[in-house]
Amino acid sequence: MNEFDIIRDVFAPLSADAEGAFSLSDDAALLEDGPYVFTKDMMVAGVHFLPKDPLDLVAKKLMRVNLSDLAAKGAKPVGYFLGCLWPAGVTREKIELFARGLKEDQETFRVSLYGGDTTAHRLKSGPLTLSATFFGRPPRAGVTRRSGAGVGDDLYVTGAIGDAGLGLKALQREEKFTTVDKASLASRYHTPEPRLSMGAAITGLATAAIDVSDGLMADAGHLASASGLRAEIDAVSIPRSAAAGTWVARQTNRWNALAAIATFGDDYEILFSAPPTMRRSVTVAANAARTQVSRIGSLVRGKGSALLDENGREIAIRASGFDHLR
Amino acid sequence: MNEFDIIRDVFAPLSADAEGAFSLSDDAALLEDGPYVFTKDMMVAGVHFLPKDPLDLVAKKLMRVNLSDLAAKGAKPVGYFLGCLWPAGVTREKIELFARGLKEDQETFRVSLYGGDTTAHRLKSGPLTLSATFFGRPPRAGVTRRSGAGVGDDLYVTGAIGDAGLGLKALQREEKFTTVDKASLASRYHTPEPRLSMGAAITGLATAAIDVSDGLMADAGHLASASGLRAEIDAVSIPRSAAAGTWVARQTNRWNALAAIATFGDDYEILFSAPPTMRRSVTVAANAARTQVSRIGSLVRGKGSALLDENGREIAIRASGFDHLR
Repeated sequence: MNEFDIIRDVFAPLSADAEGAFSLSDDAALLEDGPYVFTKDMMVAGVHFLPKDPLDLVAKKLMRVNLSDLAAKGAKPVGYFLGCLWPAGVTREKIELFARGLKEDQETFRVSLYGGDTTAHRLKSGPLTLSATFFGRPPRAGVTRRSGAGVGDDLYVTGAIGDAGLGLKALQREEKFTTVDKASLASRYHTPEPRLSMGAAITGLATAAIDVSDGLMADAGHLASASGLRAEIDAVSIPRSAAAGTWVARQTNRWNALAAIATFGDDYEILFSAPPTMRRSVTVAANAARTQVSRIGSLVRGKGSALLDENGREIAIRASGFDHLR
Repeated sequence: MNEFDIIRDVFAPLSADAEGAFSLSDDAALLEDGPYVFTKDMMVAGVHFLPKDPLDLVAKKLMRVNLSDLAAKGAKPVGYFLGCLWPAGVTREKIELFARGLKEDQETFRVSLYGGDTTAHRLKSGPLTLSATFFGRPPRAGVTRRSGAGVGDDLYVTGAIGDAGLGLKALQREEKFTTVDKASLASRYHTPEPRLSMGAAITGLATAAIDVSDGLMADAGHLASASGLRAEIDAVSIPRSAAAGTWVARQTNRWNALAAIATFGDDYEILFSAPPTMRRSVTVAANAARTQVSRIGSLVRGKGSALLDENGREIAIRASGFDHLR
């Protein structure tokens, strides 16, 4: 298998709609006019996905993790640059399966490949390492920033929280679920749903937004600190799927279970703030975007983030999110 | 050491001149207007650099390898996105040394950091993996493509070929050199010189261009095949530094030595084609860009690339360049 054959046969077709990509036959790609919003995320086997995850699903997760960042900005995705570092001796079949996942999600999200780099470890044990740089068009009203929230703003989150973390536990057999619940949770771990239409719908309405990747509490802390504020989140109001609800009901300590859900990470939902005067507009936007949205707390003076029980008392949290360098 | 402290303290200062980078405090960066040329290259410890290479030099090589792609397009560099995957337990000192290399080269080449991703392996043995996406402004006359050469066009190359490959052998103690030669060759391996001014000077004059990363013969083949032609290169005309000249003179078979130099790779010089009527213009451009340029061959009908001896006979070459997936 030859590097250049793989680029021509497997990856170049993924750039068919991108004129400035020159069919991946050049060292560079051309983006004709701006402005563009850019985001970059890496994924490493054993850190961000399971080494045994099917490669088409890994490809989709790479896409969606990056699209989720664009969604939080309200941007419309256009294309991406891709870097792949394969274990030594990778087969053509594996690369083709990976490319099939990319192709399917390119069609789903209407994005094109613009360029990249393909290389390999010296060792078979070298972990598959993926790096993607995605870009999109910012909304006319300008991107929603991570900062910009005010004291008293409500906090909202899309979809449901905790499914991906439970899906990971199901795949690693750390927790038992029914077959149906396991499939649904695993699918939320493998293929998160980037909230693109909701991200666009809250443009000019949300005061700040972030996508939930490190864990709800950690990312609430990031959003709050970007505005010099503190996030307070009402544990019982955090949206949960039926499968996650069943899991919570089974735990001996309900508050610990809710705290776990709020710290798992990998949710790729959008957390955003808006003034209380905008509650009706948020509902209208959610309906227009056909996206479930829950009001889960508010921003107050102070620092960090706190998870509150039904009496407003703070629930102890062991770790506030994933820190890649700890 | 905390991931977010490192981003704020070590990497955010590298984005000081990039307004759209939001001090790396957001999930995305904004490029206000276009057009832009993009390029992406990965570097992995043990594959693209030596695991013991000083990290400030690794940072500079990452920059220069990518800037070399922009140089071949005639583009003016503007900024970059950076992905770092560190071995588990990396120290803050190591990350700071790496960032110091970035800072020095940002000043040399006037580029800014616009965003990125920092993560770590689960294992201490996980190789440092770097991914950079660089962008720049295309020249007004449009980028120089890899394709576009005509039959009979001359082939030129900047600087000298073979130094980086010999530098690698010197660092790995596969070959012996004088202290002075070793230092000069190692420096060419660690910190190649992106030929930005020459790349800009040949815009509209070169019919095709590529940077020499896989090896002169391999990249000559890539350039030629992009135009459906064959590259013929005159071995004795390949420019060599004094240190490389000394090494060639010491080898038992001169033609094998010249073939080795033409296939080492990692040169990051610009190989370009231009019609014979442009010879005087190429000299003028080289003088204006203060860059050494050598005419080393021509493009003919056919396929692939051939290295010719002084009688025009083809010299056998063992491998035509680096293939990352072989």
